[in-house]
Amino acid sequence: MSEKLVQLKEILGEVSDLGSAGSILSWDQQVNMPPAGAEARGQQLATLGKIAQEKFTSDEVGSLLEDLKKEYTDPETDEGALIRVTARTYEKAKSVPAEFIAEQAIAATKGVEAWVEAKSKSDFSIFRPHLEKNVELVKKYVSFFPPADHPYDTLLDDYEPGMKTAEVREIFGNLRPKQVALIKAISESKQVKSEFLNKSYNEKKVWDFGEAIITKFGYDFNRGRQDKAPHPFETTFNVNDVRITNRYEKNAPLATLFSAMHECGHALYELGSNPAYERTPLAGGTSLAVHESQSRMWENLVGRSLPFWEHFYPELKKTFPTQLDGVSLKSFYRAINKVEPSFIRVNADEATYNLHIMLRLEIEIGLVDGSMEVKDLPEIWNAKMRDYLGVTPPNDRQGVLQDIHWSYGSIGYFSTYALGNIVSAQLWEQINKEIKDLDEQIRKGQFGELREWLRAKIHVHSHKYDPQDIVKKVTGSTIDSAAYVRYLTKKYSEVYGL
Amino acid sequence: MSEKLVQLKEILGEVSDLGSAGSILSWDQQVNMPPAGAEARGQQLATLGKIAQEKFTSDEVGSLLEDLKKEYTDPETDEGALIRVTARTYEKAKSVPAEFIAEQAIAATKGVEAWVEAKSKSDFSIFRPHLEKNVELVKKYVSFFPPADHPYDTLLDDYEPGMKTAEVREIFGNLRPKQVALIKAISESKQVKSEFLNKSYNEKKVWDFGEAIITKFGYDFNRGRQDKAPHPFETTFNVNDVRITNRYEKNAPLATLFSAMHECGHALYELGSNPAYERTPLAGGTSLAVHESQSRMWENLVGRSLPFWEHFYPELKKTFPTQLDGVSLKSFYRAINKVEPSFIRVNADEATYNLHIMLRLEIEIGLVDGSMEVKDLPEIWNAKMRDYLGVTPPNDRQGVLQDIHWSYGSIGYFSTYALGNIVSAQLWEQINKEIKDLDEQIRKGQFGELREWLRAKIHVHSHKYDPQDIVKKVTGSTIDSAAYVRYLTKKYSEVYGL
Repeated sequence: MSEKLVQLKEILGEVSDLGSAGSILSWDQQVNMPPAGAEARGQQLATLGKIAQEKFTSDEVGSLLEDLKKEYTDPETDEGALIRVTARTYEKAKSVPAEFIAEQAIAATKGVEAWVEAKSKSDFSIFRPHLEKNVELVKKYVSFFPPADHPYDTLLDDYEPGMKTAEVREIFGNLRPKQVALIKAISESKQVKSEFLNKSYNEKKVWDFGEAIITKFGYDFNRGRQDKAPHPFETTFNVNDVRITNRYEKNAPLATLFSAMHECGHALYELGSNPAYERTPLAGGTSLAVHESQSRMWENLVGRSLPFWEHFYPELKKTFPTQLDGVSLKSFYRAINKVEPSFIRVNADEATYNLHIMLRLEIEIGLVDGSMEVKDLPEIWNAKMRDYLGVTPPNDRQGVLQDIHWSYGSIGYFSTYALGNIVSAQLWEQINKEIKDLDEQIRKGQFGELREWLRAKIHVHSHKYDPQDIVKKVTGSTIDSAAYVRYLTKKYSEVYGL
Repeated sequence: MSEKLVQLKEILGEVSDLGSAGSILSWDQQVNMPPAGAEARGQQLATLGKIAQEKFTSDEVGSLLEDLKKEYTDPETDEGALIRVTARTYEKAKSVPAEFIAEQAIAATKGVEAWVEAKSKSDFSIFRPHLEKNVELVKKYVSFFPPADHPYDTLLDDYEPGMKTAEVREIFGNLRPKQVALIKAISESKQVKSEFLNKSYNEKKVWDFGEAIITKFGYDFNRGRQDKAPHPFETTFNVNDVRITNRYEKNAPLATLFSAMHECGHALYELGSNPAYERTPLAGGTSLAVHESQSRMWENLVGRSLPFWEHFYPELKKTFPTQLDGVSLKSFYRAINKVEPSFIRVNADEATYNLHIMLRLEIEIGLVDGSMEVKDLPEIWNAKMRDYLGVTPPNDRQGVLQDIHWSYGSIGYFSTYALGNIVSAQLWEQINKEIKDLDEQIRKGQFGELREWLRAKIHVHSHKYDPQDIVKKVTGSTIDSAAYVRYLTKKYSEVYGL
């Protein structure tokens, strides 16, 4: 390794340590921190972020990268990938002035505050000026970068490196009519019974059942832990300390099981990352969409499948004999796959979820390219809900005001959720070609071969390849919704007898 | 505030944030971290420490301090105190070369490893060369500083700013014969019964009882929390996030209560620190001894007193009716104050604890000034144990090898434990002069006036005054053992009917 690469890796290592420290502080904030600690914690996080930013965007890093780019030109080597990915992140970081970041942070704080009030009063007019400000800032952010095919490309690239707006539009354009048609067909079918899911289930027993499942998936409690938090999430402190959080909601007690599987999917990706990439920008998952493909696969393609519950349902029934009394495996399977168009994205089922995303993506693109205006959003939102899902939100709280993201100026990553679903189905088709008896293995509660396949094909490459590249390497195709349509159609034909 | 002071406070704020981040990472390491995370965590902590050190010892800080020293000369003002304390810490930090710190860190790691093996085999010869190396390094450390009256002064000053070896020797010299005589008198008295303390007490009930006590003391769970950890400790992330840990040991189930009170004492000191000093070296307690005066006061002078248990014993008896069946308040009080000379410092009772400390202090001073040699320590240790406590350790594991401190080169702070006891009694006499009905208040479970007295007299001054100065300000005298002797004599006269 060249002397300059050693120098660069030393700086990147420190930047990574500062980032990990920030992650630990954030995790603690959500899991443990006493309420009064919030203000100082914000200050501590800001300091860590500032120092990391200063170190990473130093001229020293710039000049090392310039030299190393000439030295390590093969992107297939780890060194080449490291220089490529680091240089890209460096250019991005250098493009945005510090004063702009400060301005955006202030707008974000005010935006969240206004959004909380607007949502509680279901009054969009309170939020509107703040969203207008955030959109203006996002446009300014885009202006710091070289012109792209579409201004939204610049935003998307922050979450899905290399992905273009045109690609996402095409992928979603193909998917939307099919998914809308599917939902229509389902809504005209005989409805599924699921009342027993809303009975009272003991919290500790549900929690333990979830941990038993993810232990079988291969989540290693020697290298991670599951804690209670207001929202489920996964966070990585290093390849040997990858934690998840979960919650228990009285009105959806078994959702805890699916959240555990979902976050475990994220965690397995991080735990499978190449240890050689630790403390560099190559560590961890390559993009939000590929990350989501892992979480959604374990949650849905595995965790809501019939073979999975053939294995686990007897034990679940033994754990909750009263609640599941008289409920057959098939009834349970149908209930956890029930489709019901609803207003709220985070509660949406597999069949309707993507449509919630598409609606948001179209609005984000419209706001960024100027074809839509903030003032028209409530109306646009409701019209799209009718078109895609056949329901109209009764108020803005359950409509355009439901998500926090835009209030702090985050525009560009909603699509990654839907892309993750799509990629999960592409990978699933490929896996089933290569592991012929996968269903049989799942039926026996064996997940090792699946996990190791994902590790070898996806996890271990960490951030080395861009999302489209890794999907193409593994499946032979870039991201494409056909497999997902086939998956949904087959599944819901079974569940609803379409 | 002068422009330069603003600049200095900005840097000190960042250094403080890095320190807080380190404390959070360390707390997590001891409370939550999955085992495999240890290696990366060490790296993350090292990076935070290195960056904080670089920032603090920068030439910029040095030149700001030079100028500010001329501007803020009154040590009674907050600004004057800030410059004084910061300059002193700065000089110290600048005096020690980075290579030396690295050398000491390596010796510490090897020393701990050797100590673990030596202790498990009870074989001092394994540890001896490492302790010799550590002593050599400590002498080298001392050589980086201007000559003091005694070389040990330099070490002591790291924990008790301004304190001299001669002062500590005098304080302990006055105390030792009286404490030895007291123990001798106790050992010749009728022994106290305490078998009921070793019965089985439900862990959760003990834990909750401890939390009920410290809630009455005024520990605010909105600004802190208590978690399980292998060792009880207090840690401060900021004035509004001050946490404590505790443990439950089957063979000493009620020790959890006294540990909770002890750590709560530390926490109240930190929670009472002046918020205006946040993110500066003035924040938090002034020294280990003054800190220990707070923890030992709440644990011993309050928590092992008769009025305290007049209030809490009925409730304790209700919580553990079988275990305490037939045990009177007086019997319980005597049992928790039982004196028993023993080999192990951390298990020592109030009457014998200080003698364990004095023995260590004498050895540390001897090693540093060259009047003792490492090879002779086992013999010296055992001889002093016989002289002071009348017992001889059966082996080095229960003798000279029992404590970890020397293995990582930490020499200079054992004395702070004993000084804390002494100061706690001085403060107690003063408090009882100013709060006439304190016993009566405690008997009613009222601790507010005591806590607020401590806050106003000690806590709120944080690091502004050096330990001897704050003790003198509050009690009219520097640290002196007379009050402690009076306290011990009175208490054990009651307990043992001397």
